[in-house]
Amino acid sequence: MPHPVTGLPVVGMVGAGQLARMTQEAALGLGLTLAVLARHADEAAALATPEVTLGAPDDARRLATFAAGCDVLTFDHELVPAELVRALAAGGSVVHPGALALEVAQDKCRMRTVLSELGLPVPNWQPVASVSEVTRFAAAHGWPLVLKRSHGGYDGRGVYFLAEGDDLPLPVSEGLLVEQRVSIARELAAVVARRPAGELAGWPLVQTVQRNGICVEVIAPAPDVDPGMQRVASEIAETIAVALDVVGVLAVELFDTGHELLVNEIAVRPHNSAHWTIEGSRTSQFAQHLRAVLDWPLGDPTPEEGWTVMANVLAGPDTRFAVSLPQALADPGIVVHLYGKTARAGRKVGHVTARGQVLEEVRRRAAAGARRLAGGAG
Amino acid sequence: MPHPVTGLPVVGMVGAGQLARMTQEAALGLGLTLAVLARHADEAAALATPEVTLGAPDDARRLATFAAGCDVLTFDHELVPAELVRALAAGGSVVHPGALALEVAQDKCRMRTVLSELGLPVPNWQPVASVSEVTRFAAAHGWPLVLKRSHGGYDGRGVYFLAEGDDLPLPVSEGLLVEQRVSIARELAAVVARRPAGELAGWPLVQTVQRNGICVEVIAPAPDVDPGMQRVASEIAETIAVALDVVGVLAVELFDTGHELLVNEIAVRPHNSAHWTIEGSRTSQFAQHLRAVLDWPLGDPTPEEGWTVMANVLAGPDTRFAVSLPQALADPGIVVHLYGKTARAGRKVGHVTARGQVLEEVRRRAAAGARRLAGGAG
Repeated sequence: MPHPVTGLPVVGMVGAGQLARMTQEAALGLGLTLAVLARHADEAAALATPEVTLGAPDDARRLATFAAGCDVLTFDHELVPAELVRALAAGGSVVHPGALALEVAQDKCRMRTVLSELGLPVPNWQPVASVSEVTRFAAAHGWPLVLKRSHGGYDGRGVYFLAEGDDLPLPVSEGLLVEQRVSIARELAAVVARRPAGELAGWPLVQTVQRNGICVEVIAPAPDVDPGMQRVASEIAETIAVALDVVGVLAVELFDTGHELLVNEIAVRPHNSAHWTIEGSRTSQFAQHLRAVLDWPLGDPTPEEGWTVMANVLAGPDTRFAVSLPQALADPGIVVHLYGKTARAGRKVGHVTARGQVLEEVRRRAAAGARRLAGGAG
Repeated sequence: MPHPVTGLPVVGMVGAGQLARMTQEAALGLGLTLAVLARHADEAAALATPEVTLGAPDDARRLATFAAGCDVLTFDHELVPAELVRALAAGGSVVHPGALALEVAQDKCRMRTVLSELGLPVPNWQPVASVSEVTRFAAAHGWPLVLKRSHGGYDGRGVYFLAEGDDLPLPVSEGLLVEQRVSIARELAAVVARRPAGELAGWPLVQTVQRNGICVEVIAPAPDVDPGMQRVASEIAETIAVALDVVGVLAVELFDTGHELLVNEIAVRPHNSAHWTIEGSRTSQFAQHLRAVLDWPLGDPTPEEGWTVMANVLAGPDTRFAVSLPQALADPGIVVHLYGKTARAGRKVGHVTARGQVLEEVRRRAAAGARRLAGGAG
């Protein structure tokens, strides 16, 4: 049912974190209002739109009620059980991305199986249910290893690095996999949007910089990418988007070993590695996600000139935005994004974008802005 | 009282039209949420934020209650009686801009008196209360004339062009002024932001194109502006901002006679002539207005490279956004802004921005996008 005032479709987003909040910013520009399904009334996006339904993303009845009020349903996270998405779609709801894409993104074992079947390069891996399976994998592929939970990990949670002789950090049973710890020159991300009609639009490959498993910086475009590497990355992303029938934004995290690109993870929603597009591209990932799930023509993903660097803001022990935000704004060379969250130490509460012609200067300003916002000296 | 989740100040805006809606977009990016005082629950900005208070802008009690919940109060229009603003400020509310700026902007006779006292160039004018005063003014300054209501006109309403021998379009009594109809080569606008600490930041002079008294197009920067003209325009805007103690965005509409710049109107709020800044400048007027009223460091008003053209979207008799919006989005070279309004014929319902290096091409695309959105052939 289109909006009674504008006659435009109502987009519903399951989840109300910063991705939903930034999607609402983009929605407002297009004359849309985003409805969100939020666990709590004080979540980032629940503070940003009048259209808030409270409920858990795995509550089938609440989800069905929410979907019934929306013309298209989409997601700010991957926590909705795929069988619920299948039931909604069977009941006539338009849901993008669909159950296949969501369940592959939710399950790292399934993800690696699908990627391997598509002929895409991934690190050597194996599902494990016992210590002996871990040991046998190490014997075949060598140490060190990465032990991962197949479900639910993000920002470095549920991922454990193992050297030979290390104690296992958790009991080994179902729902785990091991992976060869490949030697990584750097990490990259390929982000693409796809609409149901099939049209694809990709942003250039970016470099992501992690600290303790959390992305702290994104450099767009990634330095030193030759056309061949860009082509390989785009083909990987497009192959996945088509094979999983992704509609909306797809982010593919890649390991650059120095010799080849390996797929690490995928996400079928707007992604931290493309926040730079808000200022750095003609079309932001949030506007693009909306256009894609509405099956509207995609926007131009061409980057603005020069370099764009995004630095995540992780709250410190003493972060007080009322003090740190005006301090950060004193640098006219940055754009600040805060997510409407309480500053709890270690929490991702915003990001800073800088643009310019000299990469090291742009990186320095973005990082300094993020430090200032966190309450550091800058 | 800062927001309980973020600890950041709550900004209240009186009025809930498209200016408030676009201010909410900017507020979300900064981690703020805008509260609005709306006449009706279906106004553009009332659909865009959960913080809506219903009430008329001249309802003293409602205004006081609204102000009490906000750290700073600002405006999306000039309809709040200045005495109410004075009372709020006397009661301890932070109100930007203040009563002086608002009452001068509300009253064209007062505005011209102040501008003349500041030594700024304005067309010859005079308040009139009788037909004989109109006739005497014409005898002194010649025909044609412009007859204006001192209060309440906008988008060409309350403005009447008179040639010699024309019947008067309304009875002449208090509250009117006449003005010489100067020969205008083009219309320009100088837009500047000012914070209480005194810092000023201006965007480059833009050209505005009107049709039937309504702005239909803005070209940024204005073509053929030499540094001398830019300096004169900036000095005019800064003089007014300082003299009226404007805090926030000030827009000064100027007549370019080909020989000199004359001040036509001022507005002490974000303004249609600066919508181009959303994509065309490092800092949009809406983000800048928030920074200014919060007394935070102002952003960089530097334009992006090349030309930016904004075309207003006026709804046609058959506008249906659900059809026309995806059609307009088929041109990847434009950015569409719809305001969340019902499409009623003649109503300003959105705008389109285009950017590029070739001005005529940029103008053509923006205009075509606006026509398509209105439901025309494009």
